[in-house]
Parts: sequence; structure tokens; C-alpha cells
Amino acid sequence: MNVKNAFYAQSGGVTAVINASACGVIETARKHSDRIGNVFAGRNGIVGALTEELVDTNRETREDIAALRYTPGGAFGSCRYKLADPEKDRREFERLLEIFRAHDIGYFFYNGGGDSADTCYKISRFSSLMGYPIQAIHVPKTIDNDLPLTDCCPGFGSVAKYIAVSTIEASFDVRSMCRTSTRVFVLEVMGRHAGWIAAAGGLAEDYGIPVVVLFPEVAFDEKRFLAKVEENVTRFGYCTVVVSEGCRYPDGKFLADQGARDAFGHAHLGGAAPVVANMIHEKFAYPFHWAVANYLQRSARHIASAIDVEQAYELGAAAVELALEGRNAVMPTIERLSDEPYRYKIGVADLKDVANVEKFMPRSFIREDGYGVTEECKRYLYPLMQGENYPPYQKGLPEYVTLQNRLVPRKLGPFYKSI
Amino acid sequence: MNVKNAFYAQSGGVTAVINASACGVIETARKHSDRIGNVFAGRNGIVGALTEELVDTNRETREDIAALRYTPGGAFGSCRYKLADPEKDRREFERLLEIFRAHDIGYFFYNGGGDSADTCYKISRFSSLMGYPIQAIHVPKTIDNDLPLTDCCPGFGSVAKYIAVSTIEASFDVRSMCRTSTRVFVLEVMGRHAGWIAAAGGLAEDYGIPVVVLFPEVAFDEKRFLAKVEENVTRFGYCTVVVSEGCRYPDGKFLADQGARDAFGHAHLGGAAPVVANMIHEKFAYPFHWAVANYLQRSARHIASAIDVEQAYELGAAAVELALEGRNAVMPTIERLSDEPYRYKIGVADLKDVANVEKFMPRSFIREDGYGVTEECKRYLYPLMQGENYPPYQKGLPEYVTLQNRLVPRKLGPFYKSI
Repeated sequence: MNVKNAFYAQSGGVTAVINASACGVIETARKHSDRIGNVFAGRNGIVGALTEELVDTNRETREDIAALRYTPGGAFGSCRYKLADPEKDRREFERLLEIFRAHDIGYFFYNGGGDSADTCYKISRFSSLMGYPIQAIHVPKTIDNDLPLTDCCPGFGSVAKYIAVSTIEASFDVRSMCRTSTRVFVLEVMGRHAGWIAAAGGLAEDYGIPVVVLFPEVAFDEKRFLAKVEENVTRFGYCTVVVSEGCRYPDGKFLADQGARDAFGHAHLGGAAPVVANMIHEKFAYPFHWAVANYLQRSARHIASAIDVEQAYELGAAAVELALEGRNAVMPTIERLSDEPYRYKIGVADLKDVANVEKFMPRSFIREDGYGVTEECKRYLYPLMQGENYPPYQKGLPEYVTLQNRLVPRKLGPFYKSI
Repeated sequence: MNVKNAFYAQSGGVTAVINASACGVIETARKHSDRIGNVFAGRNGIVGALTEELVDTNRETREDIAALRYTPGGAFGSCRYKLADPEKDRREFERLLEIFRAHDIGYFFYNGGGDSADTCYKISRFSSLMGYPIQAIHVPKTIDNDLPLTDCCPGFGSVAKYIAVSTIEASFDVRSMCRTSTRVFVLEVMGRHAGWIAAAGGLAEDYGIPVVVLFPEVAFDEKRFLAKVEENVTRFGYCTVVVSEGCRYPDGKFLADQGARDAFGHAHLGGAAPVVANMIHEKFAYPFHWAVANYLQRSARHIASAIDVEQAYELGAAAVELALEGRNAVMPTIERLSDEPYRYKIGVADLKDVANVEKFMPRSFIREDGYGVTEECKRYLYPLMQGENYPPYQKGLPEYVTLQNRLVPRKLGPFYKSI
């Protein structure tokens, strides 16, 4: 049988479970050593392919590869780097093919979001055009949950769990304090274009918590919003606000962009949470607290969703199996079979249908008043947060792995430009 | 035997484990029903005593009381309310005695920090002076870890664990991204006067993470700090900064207080994290991210330290036992016997030695350059974060309890003022 090597790279913002997908790819490839010789991982994503910094994953122990399943971040490094369109500048794509040829790579596994799906598709087409065909398989990953043709994206379920749990916990705190102290708590969450993550904060209402969610999909109406907060404080004594970083005024301006200047006249970049908190304080003088979760939410492997970890692993494994079946320019997907009990199977989507299509949250998931989620949304969200999958601990802290990341010896000269 | 009721109240900022102390008090009191009739809990702390809003804990089920052990926040409500000094205005203390007399209360358990210890001590003295002696026992609680005569304070170990884990996880994320994107991550943590919580972030260096800690104890030196960040970014490709909310300039001004104004000229209250992040960005143009954990850190029961939960419970139980032994004006404490293996026992301190004494972090815990922790500090911190004590989950979210909090029928008229 023809043995070829595989290339695997992590792309874009990393998640709590992207390494579980890496683990699925590498462990499955190792089971098929008659067909796949080595999995070379791009050091810092696709940049590592351009610069010929290829991690020799065969030199990582079985235990360390297994530990990827519970280690957050991107174990090989990721990048934010957009390849030039090959129709305008072919040098990057040509370089990739040189690298693939030099290292006998026949499989390309790209682990990322929408932009990466597009790149993966282009690599498949370009390589076939140039007569060195590569089987290019995309492994979905994005906390933004915005890839089409899959019920959900690995990384999202764990962020959703983190945000739901954190919103509930902080609200229990505020509820305790509201008689004489804090009455409003504002939590800022990620999601510049879609409110999937903010929606998870809306689940706090199932704990009797008065929570107001500010989605990027709903134009911010200061007056209506303040009235809603006041109504909650009057009725419950306190109010929790979950604000998406992408929340905007009707004119499209982000709430976070207040044109604030510090004492020296320098731009003072703040978040949406302090803006909202100060707005409430100015109107009602309620004592408040605010938090910005930022990277904490997408790296929180300690509270990852077991279903999310499982799916991340399975999609990595499925990518390898699809490649071995001879498939090309596809992405394994999650197909939901039922909500309760939650059942799903792994499907397949063509990359040409995935690339550059963004999936927004259905309007039917947002409550009519715009400040919460519907029952339909909850039926969608709950299964994705199901189960706990705790990492092992030692001395009170998680035993996350740091790989050796030894590079394969170079065979080519340097790339024409430095990155 | 003489049966008396007990009064229990939560005071000041709540924690992930203050309810574990409540659980220890109530479960232990229930074991001694021959001596303690009922535990009345103050609705919203001591305010509930003044307003005669007493929660009848006997009407809570055994299961719900047991669930307090893993429920964050203050189950009966807490408050920030400073009683008037009885030497200046005796009306509040007199009211407390009326309430105690009306409800046949002989034991007073006050669960809080330094101010509460002082109140507890005053109540003991005042009641004895007035001829209605109350056995007043203080149950220590504070994430600030600043009570004297105890090795640590319940609440702190869990915050330390949360901050250490979060710093490590977010740093793994940044490390993955730093080749082409984020190079600096700034996490703001609580601690206005002492750097105990910030110190926990310093443990990330044991994972090979280049972390710079900004303590309130060390005057902020912008030039030296920026040089340190640059050194890390040059050497490691990235840098994590853990900044205490209490970090100050040499003139005593908080970093968070930048006198910033928004477009409308309104004061723009920010945190220390965005200030530090923007400072770094202006100097080096490094891409950055920042987070403010705020209430998330002190309510994060999902990642509580098992030792912290155990000690919170045991100190609640010990308070009841001390009361039954006839002790008065004391506080049970943690006495450390050894670091590794960690061993401790419950001790006792006199409230007169506890009240109004703040314990600062020893200078020997802060590294000479001021930006990290020493081995001595690590030996102190690690045991306090030991073990995981996960709450039960259902449908992917923790099963935290909300008590019924039914009030005992009033026996007195209203308090002279409304609170």
C-alpha cells in the first residue's frame, strides 16, 4: 500500500478542545501506519508549512498525545495568517506544494473556522490543478459556532458551559449582596458577529435569575434596556446583564467604542461591560460590578463540556477516516438526531458549501423582547454542554501537557519572505 | 439541659465556600438539639437581625442544608453594613439584644472577615455588660486572606485555585497565538490591600509560563515593568501579566483610576487590566487581550479547592463545638502543622486579638524583583488549593440549591429606621 505522510495544522483562535481534535487526528493516523507514515504538525499553523517548521509528532510519546485530549490552547501553535489568493499571487500556494512534495505529504488536515475551510478548499483545488493532488480535509473548530452544515462546532459547547456556569455563580453572589451592596452585575462575553455565546448566559433564568442578554443581532436601545434592568432590580432586588462584545448601537457602532480618552488624551480602549455598567450606574446609581471573561472563556478546559470534548475528538478521527476512504475537500460534521436524549452522528459536508458561509443564530432563538433566549434555543444549547470531562490534577492544578515540538530537518531553502 | 437558639449570619463579600461554613454550623447544631433548639439565620446578614427577618433553618430539608456545602454565594443573603459603635449610639446593639431575648437566642455565630470579627467581639462584650450574655463565636471567611492568627481564611484557597488555573489556561492560549497575534495577556484579580490572590497567578511560572505579577504591596514602576514585559516577549514570544486591582503608583493612586472621560465627559470607570494592557500596547504595539475576573473568581464553586471546602465546613462545625464548650468571644482557626504532606489542626483565637488586625503578605513571599512569588510563598499556597470538590451536575449545569428562607414570625415592632 502507498504510504504518505499527513500534515495537520491549527488555525485561528484556539479553544479548550482543539487539541482533542489533534489527538483524534494523530491517534487515528497512528492506527493506520500502513497508510499514513507520520503526521507533521505545522508549528504555529499554516505559517509552519510556509517556513518549513514541521513538528515531528512521531517523536511525541503516546501518553503526551493522549494528554492533548484534556489540554487547552493549541499544542503546536496556531496563527492568524490569511494566505494570498492563488489567483493573484501563487507563491504561497506553490510553496505549500513544494513542502508537501519534499516531505511526501498526501493528506492535509486543517483545524479551524470559516476562513480555514476556505483555505483548505483552495489547497485541494490548487494542488489538483498543479498535478500533485492532496486530500484536504477540514476539521471544524470555532467557539463562534458559525460554520454551516454542522449542528455545532467543537469549542462552542465548552465556552457555553463556562459562560452559563459563570453567569449562574456570579448571580448567586450578587443575589446575596443586593440588599445593601451590588445590585447589577455585567458580564462581557465573546461573539463579535453572533450571539451564540451570549445565549448561554441566558440559561441562568432557569435558576430563577433575572438576566438580561444583549445580543449583537439586536440593535442596542438604551432606554428600553435601562427600563428592563430597573424592572428586574425592582422585582428581584438585583439584575445580571450578559453583554456580547459585538453589541452595537442602531448605527452599527460597537458599545465598546466610546471614544474615551485618558488624562493624557490617549485612546482608552475599554470593553462593552464597563460601558454598560457605567450607563446603568449613571441612570440609577445602583452599585455595580462587571467582569470581562475574554480568553478565560475559550481556554477554560477545567470546565469543558464532555460532549464537546467527545465531538472534537471524533471529528479529528473522522477526518482521518474520510481521507483513508479517498475523500477530498470535505469536512466531517455533527448531525443532530434528537434533543433529549441527545443523539448525533458524524456526517460529511463538501467544503465548497462550507467556505465563506457564516451561520447566524436563528431569530427564533432570541426571545421576542430581544433580551433572552427561547425554549427552542434552550433545547439546542443544553445538549452541547452535557457532561463534565475534568483534566487530571496534581498539587491542586491541572496536569496539562506541553509537547516537545521537535522539528523535522529542513529539506528546502527559506521562504521568500519572513513571517 | 438548657436549650437555647442560635443566630447565624453571613457578613461582607460572599465566597464560593461560605455556605459550606453555614452547612457546618447548622448540621453540627442539629446534632446537638438537646442544647441548641433552632439556628435562625439573618436574612441578608446582620441587617436581618435588626429588622427581625430571621430565617427558620429548621424548615429547610436535610438535603438542602447538605447542598449548601457545594453552593456558592450566601444562601441567606449577606450585607455590607457597619453597626454603629455602641459607645456612640447604642440603639442598634440594644435592638440586637431585644431580638436575641425575644427569640431566646444564646449563641451568636458571625461568618465574616475582619470588620465582622470586631462586631462579633463588641456584641459579646455589650451583651455581657447588659446582663444578657451571648456566646459570640466568629467563623472566619474572606477571600482576602487577611485575618490574623489563622494560617489561612476559608474562601481564599478556592479563589487562589481559580486564578492559578485561569492564568495557566489563558497563557496556554496566548502561547499558541503569539507568533502572529496576541503577545500579551493581562488578567486583573481582586485584592485591594494585599496581593494574596495575585500571588496565585504567579504559580503559572511552574508551567514554564512567563508571568509578571503586579502586587499592591509593590509601588508600580512603569519603566521597569515595561522592560520586564519586553524581556519576556523577546525571550518567550509572549507575556502574561496578573495585576491586582489594588496596584498603585508610588504616589498611592490606583492604576485603575486614570481619570478617563467618555465622549460625553462622563467619568469612565475602568479596571487596572485595560490600563496596563493599553500602556504596553502604546509602548510596543504588541497585540493584546485582557480580562477582569471580578465576581467570577470568588463565586467559582465549580473549581473550588477541596481543602478550602473542608476547612470552611470544619470551622463552622468547630464554632458550634466551641460554643457548646462554653467559649465566648473566640474564633476557630487553621493551624498549619506541615506543608508537605499538608497537615493542619483547628485552633482557637481570642477575638480581642483578631478584631481590627490586618495580616499582610510577608515580604519574603514576593520575589526580590517584585514581579513574582518566592519558593516560600509557593510552599504556603499549594496546599490551600489541593484537591477538587466538584458540585453535582444535571443537564450540564451545577445543581446549586436555593433555600426556601421562610421567616420566623415577628415578635417585636419595626426597627427605628429602615435599612
